[in-house]
Amino acid sequence: MTEIEKWKILQSQFIVDNRWCRVRKDCVQLPDGEVVDDYFIHVRPDIALVLPITGDRNIVFVRQYRHGVGQILLELPAGSFDPQRENSVEAAKRELEEETGYYAEHLHKLATLYDNPVKDTNAIHLFLAEGVIYSGKRKFDITEDIEIVLIPLEEVAERIKNREICVAGTLSALFLGLNYLNTSQLQSTPYPSHKGRE
Amino acid sequence: MTEIEKWKILQSQFIVDNRWCRVRKDCVQLPDGEVVDDYFIHVRPDIALVLPITGDRNIVFVRQYRHGVGQILLELPAGSFDPQRENSVEAAKRELEEETGYYAEHLHKLATLYDNPVKDTNAIHLFLAEGVIYSGKRKFDITEDIEIVLIPLEEVAERIKNREICVAGTLSALFLGLNYLNTSQLQSTPYPSHKGRE
Repeated sequence: MTEIEKWKILQSQFIVDNRWCRVRKDCVQLPDGEVVDDYFIHVRPDIALVLPITGDRNIVFVRQYRHGVGQILLELPAGSFDPQRENSVEAAKRELEEETGYYAEHLHKLATLYDNPVKDTNAIHLFLAEGVIYSGKRKFDITEDIEIVLIPLEEVAERIKNREICVAGTLSALFLGLNYLNTSQLQSTPYPSHKGRE
Repeated sequence: MTEIEKWKILQSQFIVDNRWCRVRKDCVQLPDGEVVDDYFIHVRPDIALVLPITGDRNIVFVRQYRHGVGQILLELPAGSFDPQRENSVEAAKRELEEETGYYAEHLHKLATLYDNPVKDTNAIHLFLAEGVIYSGKRKFDITEDIEIVLIPLEEVAERIKNREICVAGTLSALFLGLNYLNTSQLQSTPYPSHKGRE
C-alpha cells in the first residue's frame, strides 16, 4: 500500500478576497510529481456549534432561512469566529446567547470536525451545554431572523428519523452529545440542572 | 414569534465560474425589506457517500490527503456528481467502486443532508451498503491517492471516541447507519458498539 503523502503548494493566490468570501487558487505538486495549477480552496472562518439542553430536558434548536440551499432549516445554534481572535468556547457561548437568548455556564467539548475538508479550510467545534438558562439577551446580525424551537430530548430520535434534521454538523453534535450523556453517570438519574454537573 | 420567510433574489451573477469552482454573488432582499447586495454562494455538485460493510463485518474506510485542511483523514468513500446527469444511487455505487474496488449490489438510503446550507448549494446523499464485495476495479482521478482501511464494526465506536473520525458527513452516516442496523433484523446479533443506545 502506498504511503499517503501531503501535497506541496508551489504557488498560492487569492482570486476572491473580501470580508464575506475568500477563494484561494493553489498551484500544487502531487506526490507523483504531477502539477495541478488550479486547485481552488475556500478560506472560511471556524464554526462554533452548541447542543444546548435546558434543565427541563429540552434541546434548544433554531429555525432559519439558509440561502445556500434556499430552505428554512432546523439546526443547533452555531456561528462563525476567527480562532486567532477568540477561543472556541467563548465563541460558542456568545453565539448561543446571541441567537437564542440562552446562557451556558459550562460547555463540554464534543469534537472538532470538518464539514468539507477537501475544499474548505474551516473546522467546526461542537459543544454540549447542559442546564442552559434563558437570559433573553438575543442579538441578531442583519441577515439573521431566527425562531427558537424547543424539542424534548426524548423526541429527538424521532425527529432525526423523520428527516426533519438534515444538517451534518447538527446531526453529528446530537449523536455525539446523546451518546456522551448515555454513557455518562447521568444515564440512570433524572436530568439535573447545570449545578449538579460541575 | 415571527414567521420565518425566504429571501428574494433581486440579482445574481457568477464572479468565478469554471469547472472546479463556481461562486455566485447574489443581491438579496431580506423579509424586513433590507437589501444585501453581496451575499456569496458556492455552487457545488452534490456528494454521494457510502457506508460499506463487508460480509465479515468490516467497514470500508478510505484514508487520503485533503487539501482544504492540509491533513490526511479517515473517511467513508464519497464523490461528487451532477444530479441532472446521474442519480444518487448510481453515483454512490460508482464512487464506491472507483475509490475502493468494492461493489455494492443494493444500497439503502440513510439521509440527504447538507454540509453547509448557509454558503453552499450542494446536498450530501448518504447510503448504507451491506455485504459489499471486492471487485478490484479501482479507478482514480488524477488528484486521488487513496488507502483502503478496513475497520471492524465493533471498533468503530472506539475510533469515533478517539476522534480518529472527524468529518461531519462520515460521522453522520456512521451514526445513522449503525442506528438503522440496530433497529433492523440484526439487532439481536452481537453489536457491542451501540448496545444500550435506545
